[in-house]
Amino acid sequence: MPGDWAIYGRAIHAPDGIEALVSALICVGTDGMILSVETAVAADDPRLARLRAGGSLVELTPDDILIPGLIDLHIHAPQFPQLGTALDVPLEDWLQRYTFPLESRYEDLAFAEDVYACLVETLLAHGTTTAVYFATIHLPATKRLAEICLDKGQRALVGRVGMDHPEQCPDFYRDASAEIAIAETRALIGHIRDLPGNEAALVRPMITPRFVPACTDALLEGLGALAAETRCTVQTHCSESDWEHGHVLDRCGVTDTAVLDRAGLLRRGSVLAHANFITEPDAALIRARGAAVAHCPLSNIYFAGAVFPLREMLDQGLHIGLGSDIAGGPSASLFEAARQAVAVSRLLESGTDSRKSAAARGKPGARIDFRTAFRMATAGGGESLDLPIGLFRPGYAFDAVLLRSGLPDGNLRFAEAESAAGILEKIVMLAGRGDVAQVWVAGRLVKSR
Amino acid sequence: MPGDWAIYGRAIHAPDGIEALVSALICVGTDGMILSVETAVAADDPRLARLRAGGSLVELTPDDILIPGLIDLHIHAPQFPQLGTALDVPLEDWLQRYTFPLESRYEDLAFAEDVYACLVETLLAHGTTTAVYFATIHLPATKRLAEICLDKGQRALVGRVGMDHPEQCPDFYRDASAEIAIAETRALIGHIRDLPGNEAALVRPMITPRFVPACTDALLEGLGALAAETRCTVQTHCSESDWEHGHVLDRCGVTDTAVLDRAGLLRRGSVLAHANFITEPDAALIRARGAAVAHCPLSNIYFAGAVFPLREMLDQGLHIGLGSDIAGGPSASLFEAARQAVAVSRLLESGTDSRKSAAARGKPGARIDFRTAFRMATAGGGESLDLPIGLFRPGYAFDAVLLRSGLPDGNLRFAEAESAAGILEKIVMLAGRGDVAQVWVAGRLVKSR
Ligand SMILES: [Zn+2]
Ligand SMILES: [Zn+2]
Repeated sequence: MPGDWAIYGRAIHAPDGIEALVSALICVGTDGMILSVETAVAADDPRLARLRAGGSLVELTPDDILIPGLIDLHIHAPQFPQLGTALDVPLEDWLQRYTFPLESRYEDLAFAEDVYACLVETLLAHGTTTAVYFATIHLPATKRLAEICLDKGQRALVGRVGMDHPEQCPDFYRDASAEIAIAETRALIGHIRDLPGNEAALVRPMITPRFVPACTDALLEGLGALAAETRCTVQTHCSESDWEHGHVLDRCGVTDTAVLDRAGLLRRGSVLAHANFITEPDAALIRARGAAVAHCPLSNIYFAGAVFPLREMLDQGLHIGLGSDIAGGPSASLFEAARQAVAVSRLLESGTDSRKSAAARGKPGARIDFRTAFRMATAGGGESLDLPIGLFRPGYAFDAVLLRSGLPDGNLRFAEAESAAGILEKIVMLAGRGDVAQVWVAGRLVKSR
Repeated sequence: MPGDWAIYGRAIHAPDGIEALVSALICVGTDGMILSVETAVAADDPRLARLRAGGSLVELTPDDILIPGLIDLHIHAPQFPQLGTALDVPLEDWLQRYTFPLESRYEDLAFAEDVYACLVETLLAHGTTTAVYFATIHLPATKRLAEICLDKGQRALVGRVGMDHPEQCPDFYRDASAEIAIAETRALIGHIRDLPGNEAALVRPMITPRFVPACTDALLEGLGALAAETRCTVQTHCSESDWEHGHVLDRCGVTDTAVLDRAGLLRRGSVLAHANFITEPDAALIRARGAAVAHCPLSNIYFAGAVFPLREMLDQGLHIGLGSDIAGGPSASLFEAARQAVAVSRLLESGTDSRKSAAARGKPGARIDFRTAFRMATAGGGESLDLPIGLFRPGYAFDAVLLRSGLPDGNLRFAEAESAAGILEKIVMLAGRGDVAQVWVAGRLVKSR
């Protein structure tokens, strides 16, 4: 549709609690931003007839519901081929024996293009309209990932991974020096910001030290200075597992969070993956800096050895969204991340060992429900990134997923007269790519069945 | 195919550990039973040419892999419409406020037919070739469920639910007396065994006291006597939650398992759902009787308050398979149950509370891996039911699922030269209905895309 257009039907989003938008008319500008949102618009409203006559109206059926596009805060793009692989080895083995050898292959640009194109298409099909990517240490392949996102219309934040520590990174896959890592990160930032067609910054660079163990102090400090200079946001891992958290304490004498802050890497719009073992002072520091946590419930099951205290951290006012953590988490679906966030919060609350009394095994008050999970997958992700996404509001980008009840390979079957909360619970608990009928990013239809 | 036929390609099953069947030729008789299984059959073997010429050969491609049909040991058929609903209330509220009102609607046969037809088709599409169903207290609707399974070709065990306890069952949904419940159970057994077209017993009856709290002693004893008389197997719930386990201890002075055994309800081929809180003597009794446990990891997250000690119970030699527990578990997929079985075993092993030390929070040795999960979903289910299903072996039924890599809405992408274990881990961790290309039950093709 060449000019402004509109979509009419029911929608649901989570500005704070959840809000059902009944008979909503959402007008979208040529720039892909939402111009207006009006609810309770009658089916015979003359504006609808005008829009319809002009071919500028998308009309939902009673089987349809529109939700904000999903925002995946933590994805390792190069690990996509090993989704569902070697989830029974510890994190440090998984990195050394499986992940680093795979990531080193992205020196091959043709291999990278094949995987990245498939990944971006897959994530769009799952309804992920915004993706926060770790790439590899390879600048050419990382540039291609950004270009593929722009080409296929996925909103993305893309980082070239910095990792130069000789003790934690293998010889075959390591930055030759901190200087090179910093220079190539600077080059990526310039490349993405100047990409033709990227004037609206659909794709953005991110400064990406892999995690403290993989980086020398010189690299952390250099990337922190680059962040201040370029006003570029940062992504990294933080206090993921007993091993990782303890390793940083041993080496640096303070926690991951403190190390990252000292280097200038905790910034508004920056994303820390996991944060399972952060302390109360860590949490206060993250909040003070306006940084965010990417909660990755699936990979935590296999590599963290504990559950992120999500309810507590939400109550402390941290920005928190969800991450698939491909391929530490064995699913590309952020719906799956949302339901697993609910599930692991329940297991944190109840505890797991049936041989202990209920009082002795659990942590009362730790649960979240589907509403909170949905909010993290949408508005929470937008807040985390400090971008106007994740809500149906004027001034926000029209990034949206149309879910349809009753599709052949879908799981959703809405009953008539079902409440908005009932429908949303089904969406969070059941939805998969088979339920996704259409996907828009910045007003552009990027997936349709 | 009117006569004997064969399928040629790669397969994987779990006779004990996992076994890859490379270039396998599986011959199937007209009765749907496997006649022979041969591996390493060369592509130019003259038998293949003969079968091909006769139109009696199904040939798999390199993207295909055959697995035994999935065996779901615990499904509440009438609860299918509330899949993904009200998972944040305790078990007793969930039953009284949501489940019993819904189940009471199956007095309406037309409603029952609609739901049951959709459910059976959905489960077949997910690769569930054997389904163990709780129906409702309504005899006509329960008969229809059995007929629908037979008609659509799903192997099924179907039970009319017995529930007569006036304190635990609401007035609007309760057996009027133990006698009526027993008489109608007897009627169902006869009806299913005599169904035209059911000479091979594709569909079987099951004696189904809901759970001890819902049944008077008279009903439990009467159904136990009926089991002995009719040699019919039994399904019920056992020690599911703190509340339920404690309720039975209070009322009966002994555990669920002991109560069930006293009534003659623990039998070879019988299935106890959950068993999360069973004691060591309970486990020994279940093993001695040859009864089985349906492990339902998804619903346990929401309604049990603890994780079934699966590894320990497998080590004690119990028969254990998997259940979706529709709708206590929010998924119709037994692949999902398999991966959640792995996930919750990991959280039992590691513990969940990151504020405790690793040593203090977990239960060492509690994990299972994807191999064990796959075995439970297939051969373990067959052993539990004491039926020749779940393996590719002569004398076993040809119940099978063909998974295909690269389907449009699928998750599976096998790499070339991937090991059988690697492929199996991807299947357990990633597969969904979008990956299911074809499904056979007793040699009959019941689903194809
Ligand atoms: Zn990660
Ligand atoms: Zn149940």
